[in-house]
Amino acid sequence: MKHQINPDLQRERDNCSFDIAELTTIIDGSPEKTKERKEREECFLVSLSEGPSTAVPEEYLSHREKYERGLHSSCYIFKQIRKWQEEGKMNINNYRYVIGGILSSSLVRDGSVFGLHYIMFMPAIINLGSEEQHQTWLKRAWTCSIIGTFAQTELGHGTFIRGLETTATYDPETKEFVLNTPTLTSYKWWPGGLGHTSNHCIVVAQLHTGGKCHGIHSFIVQIRDEDTHMPLPGVKIGNIGAKLGLNAVDNGYLALDHVRIPRMNMLMRHAQVMEDGTYVKSRNSKLNYGAMMFVRVVIVFDMLNYLTKAVTIATRYSAVRRQCQVKEGEPEVQILDYMTQQHKLFIGISAAHALRISANRLWDTLNEVSDQIEQGNLERLPELHALACCLKAISTADTAALVERCRLACGGHGYMLSSNLPLTYGLVTAACTYEGENTVLLLQTARFLMKTWQHIDTAKTTPTIEYLKITSDPNYVNKWEKSVQGIIRGFQVVAMRKTSKSFEMMKTRMMSGLSQADAWNMTSVQLVAAAEAHCRAVMLQAYHEATVAEAAAASPQLGPVLLQLLELYAAYWALEKTSDLLQYTPITGDDITELQIWYEELLTKIRPNAVGLVDAFDIRDDILQSTLGAYDGRVYERLFEEAQKAPLNAEPVNQSFHQYLKPFMQGKL
Amino acid sequence: MKHQINPDLQRERDNCSFDIAELTTIIDGSPEKTKERKEREECFLVSLSEGPSTAVPEEYLSHREKYERGLHSSCYIFKQIRKWQEEGKMNINNYRYVIGGILSSSLVRDGSVFGLHYIMFMPAIINLGSEEQHQTWLKRAWTCSIIGTFAQTELGHGTFIRGLETTATYDPETKEFVLNTPTLTSYKWWPGGLGHTSNHCIVVAQLHTGGKCHGIHSFIVQIRDEDTHMPLPGVKIGNIGAKLGLNAVDNGYLALDHVRIPRMNMLMRHAQVMEDGTYVKSRNSKLNYGAMMFVRVVIVFDMLNYLTKAVTIATRYSAVRRQCQVKEGEPEVQILDYMTQQHKLFIGISAAHALRISANRLWDTLNEVSDQIEQGNLERLPELHALACCLKAISTADTAALVERCRLACGGHGYMLSSNLPLTYGLVTAACTYEGENTVLLLQTARFLMKTWQHIDTAKTTPTIEYLKITSDPNYVNKWEKSVQGIIRGFQVVAMRKTSKSFEMMKTRMMSGLSQADAWNMTSVQLVAAAEAHCRAVMLQAYHEATVAEAAAASPQLGPVLLQLLELYAAYWALEKTSDLLQYTPITGDDITELQIWYEELLTKIRPNAVGLVDAFDIRDDILQSTLGAYDGRVYERLFEEAQKAPLNAEPVNQSFHQYLKPFMQGKL
Repeated sequence: MKHQINPDLQRERDNCSFDIAELTTIIDGSPEKTKERKEREECFLVSLSEGPSTAVPEEYLSHREKYERGLHSSCYIFKQIRKWQEEGKMNINNYRYVIGGILSSSLVRDGSVFGLHYIMFMPAIINLGSEEQHQTWLKRAWTCSIIGTFAQTELGHGTFIRGLETTATYDPETKEFVLNTPTLTSYKWWPGGLGHTSNHCIVVAQLHTGGKCHGIHSFIVQIRDEDTHMPLPGVKIGNIGAKLGLNAVDNGYLALDHVRIPRMNMLMRHAQVMEDGTYVKSRNSKLNYGAMMFVRVVIVFDMLNYLTKAVTIATRYSAVRRQCQVKEGEPEVQILDYMTQQHKLFIGISAAHALRISANRLWDTLNEVSDQIEQGNLERLPELHALACCLKAISTADTAALVERCRLACGGHGYMLSSNLPLTYGLVTAACTYEGENTVLLLQTARFLMKTWQHIDTAKTTPTIEYLKITSDPNYVNKWEKSVQGIIRGFQVVAMRKTSKSFEMMKTRMMSGLSQADAWNMTSVQLVAAAEAHCRAVMLQAYHEATVAEAAAASPQLGPVLLQLLELYAAYWALEKTSDLLQYTPITGDDITELQIWYEELLTKIRPNAVGLVDAFDIRDDILQSTLGAYDGRVYERLFEEAQKAPLNAEPVNQSFHQYLKPFMQGKL
Repeated sequence: MKHQINPDLQRERDNCSFDIAELTTIIDGSPEKTKERKEREECFLVSLSEGPSTAVPEEYLSHREKYERGLHSSCYIFKQIRKWQEEGKMNINNYRYVIGGILSSSLVRDGSVFGLHYIMFMPAIINLGSEEQHQTWLKRAWTCSIIGTFAQTELGHGTFIRGLETTATYDPETKEFVLNTPTLTSYKWWPGGLGHTSNHCIVVAQLHTGGKCHGIHSFIVQIRDEDTHMPLPGVKIGNIGAKLGLNAVDNGYLALDHVRIPRMNMLMRHAQVMEDGTYVKSRNSKLNYGAMMFVRVVIVFDMLNYLTKAVTIATRYSAVRRQCQVKEGEPEVQILDYMTQQHKLFIGISAAHALRISANRLWDTLNEVSDQIEQGNLERLPELHALACCLKAISTADTAALVERCRLACGGHGYMLSSNLPLTYGLVTAACTYEGENTVLLLQTARFLMKTWQHIDTAKTTPTIEYLKITSDPNYVNKWEKSVQGIIRGFQVVAMRKTSKSFEMMKTRMMSGLSQADAWNMTSVQLVAAAEAHCRAVMLQAYHEATVAEAAAASPQLGPVLLQLLELYAAYWALEKTSDLLQYTPITGDDITELQIWYEELLTKIRPNAVGLVDAFDIRDDILQSTLGAYDGRVYERLFEEAQKAPLNAEPVNQSFHQYLKPFMQGKL
């Protein structure tokens, strides 16, 4: 059934000053990539349509039913992925899109039980397993004849991996490891797919052999019978319970009571335990960084998916929604015309482009550095690690704030789950905590900054920290200019000054007698701020460089629009950070007033293209899954239709009227 | 079953420097009030225990089951309220506690179906109904022999009440009103308890009589049969569907197809329609402000309840949780010892006291001004309205941010629904939108500021805007001082300057040819900022005045702690607003460094009392309902016990293994 497009939305599209498809191509990377994406989406949506009925939307289901439907859907989607794998259609480039993009943020609305099988279980076997182990496990994992997950976090330990309590003790008599979780706090807790889905699991545990602890290592443990799916002896396992989001992911707990596994179930590519129990150390302890950074880059791309969804929903809704008659005799105003609304939304559109560019850069750098690491060159690892840490932290925190801003911008209707905004927030905010808690990550970046600053004069400056050297040069001219470049320079000075100030503060505190650890702790609020400033300077510069190139290559209609978005992003963040600019650059109060006016003018310039800009993200209705954001703008119709699907509305009178309400009203309860 | 207190938590309590009960008394207001509160809590918890079993926690239920359990619980709680009413135990003072405090934020975790019956339906009859109507409706409402709600918002209209489309057309032939919702957008949407619970409803509609529209008025409409509960003819009604929170509230929609009601069902205390259709206007259109303001004050108190819950949970958890070995050979650190964690949590404790004091002030002022209004004196109405608007907006926005900050401070475990933090956020963020969307409310305050500023020289300055006159005096000495008073003065100058700057900007834009409406819109981002600055100046001053008095009356142990919290609040917000201070006061970069160090010292001073400070909020475990925040600190035990209650864990193997997972793994799907 084709419906008419809401006329307000149609008018927006008619008035858009550029070719929407051109922008979509830029976002995807090339016309071929757009075509591939569309085919991929179509293909997976078709597989999904063979799955469970969605006559009752999942938000009406119980926790158990959400799991069951999620599993059902996932089987049909991963059937397709398996098919693609068999056909050789999966490769490093589309793998990221399929696993990261489509799965974790689009088709399976509330996450997938099989996510960790692909993102952690298989990669861990590849990275940490020997050739022999690849033979044994990888083929079975690849065809999904076993399903695995990765269990590191425990009830009592997340950030502090060294503190994990699960033990794997080698028994040379039987040539087995004995896996044990000796305390409640050592129970594994959180792994996706662990509760009721996986039958295998990589368990991270403290390795004990020859009476010595050798720190954490990874072990493959079968946890359920392959035929009956019953938990194996000594294995206590289940779902950890209802969460803010991701309720279809089957996060689980796992307790192991002296469970024995063959020696060959320890992943032995790097470190090994010989038959007699001799421990052979890994050559390099930093080789694992690669996998961790890969996951963080995938997270940044994920954020991009969520943010584009949220701004698409909120912008289209704001074009359809009319509220308040501002001028006598005129119709009510599209809320998109209110500057306060533009202030809420347009930064989200700009930020999506900034994220896209940062994520692409990070992805390229990661691949470069990975190649260098393969060749034994670890020089750029610390810089890349520091960059991935702060980008993960800032992109997740910013996206969470922007998604919530979009939701609130939709007023009451944004509170409806059918808007898809609350669910989107639930998924995004989770990323602020998993794969490195944001504050912890920013402190990692700060540690890198402190080390770099200590030797700034002599250090070989790598691309993302070159500015520290330049701006701290005594001859550097610190001036203010109302332009993107001016703001970048300002942000670089701010980051440099916050870095140097934190460094000095640390030094002063240590000289006054504090230990290094205590001085670090006392200064940590400022260190976090320094790491954030560093990240913003790097992101803005990357966004600037790439956009100038994109705009130059674009049509004369689109080019200026791309630059407007960049300028808006720069002006917005400059206004957010005027405190820093006032402290560390020669910006004046009048400059700030000008900046504010510039920002307001940019909002006005972007306004007519707002709908076109979100259309260009090209998110299909069946991926967007929002009553407020659908392409046709039938907002009120969809809200009403969705409500009709609530099982509560299937009967005119709910049973509890007879059971409780009527007796209560009659005073008989 | 009594469990031992977690030793880390016990040590915190042993080391607290003040008497926790003394602070509880201050928070409650007097020893008698503490006693009353405890009795009230006990009494309602006993009623609730007669209600539904909670063996399966509500987060595992489906949308329909959540409604059913919520209704069941509510019947048992409101049975007790009805009993209290009959016994004459309900009065204006405890009414607020019972309806606002206990119900909307404590006992009924996800809201109550009967909330609007008490907060809107009955008060509307009292305020808008004639004596005769009181006789007819109030007694039945009072005994709950009818259950009502209040339907104003429509699918297409929330903020703009004048734009409501529902009509009530008087038919003098039959002496009836014909209620009609002519379009989909005119369907009533959102009222709590409307979907499946209420059988009566106050409908706000455009009154038509004698061929003329007289604007919106309120009408009592019976919507369901009192005996069968079936929707009456012409009434289309149901639940609006799943939401981010408040899923037990039964928010509903309502369409009326030419439904006829007797003339006497229009609430006629103020305006009337005579038998022949003659319309008699109300004497005063502003009399309704009182009810609206009452609701907003209740919201501020609600925020206080939610915030104290969140900081209690996060602070106790942070004392129990240990993570990372910072110094060799020492145990892992309580995360409460990390300054970044203190930075996340302690502002929440301070903000709770600031909110408590602001809410109490607003409550007192509201009562004062209400008395004046009763006597026909409307002089202070605009000021009070402006104050209630911005306090509602800032208190809900701040609380939402702080609750989320607490949740994120609990890491992954804060993402568990059993922590009660996600649900708390869902309830708080709803308040950013309902009863006046926050941006709209801040613009109302800004409008008052602009009007005041226009006549600042001659205006009679009322208490909350006296500072505008003082700080704008040419002889005023604008100086910076690192103290609470210094910050208050700084904030006052900032608010004055933002007000005057917005005013000038409006003037400039109008002189350049923009209409007043367009100039307003172009300046609205700055107007919102001015209103926020005004609110922060007023709140901080109120917090300061009351705390100085409380500290002076408190014991020598407690007094200084109260002042530390005040100083922390002032320093935190000064650091958040250094941009404004740098622009409008003579504060320097060095002053800001000093401010930062002061703030860090305050965190360190408050640290040893943190647990005592949240204990003093005295929230019972069965009201707190949190695995992470319980008094005994059995965090991990409770997390594990809660997971065991998930119905998904009732069976070792879920049915979907046989249906989908096994066939999928075998490649047979």
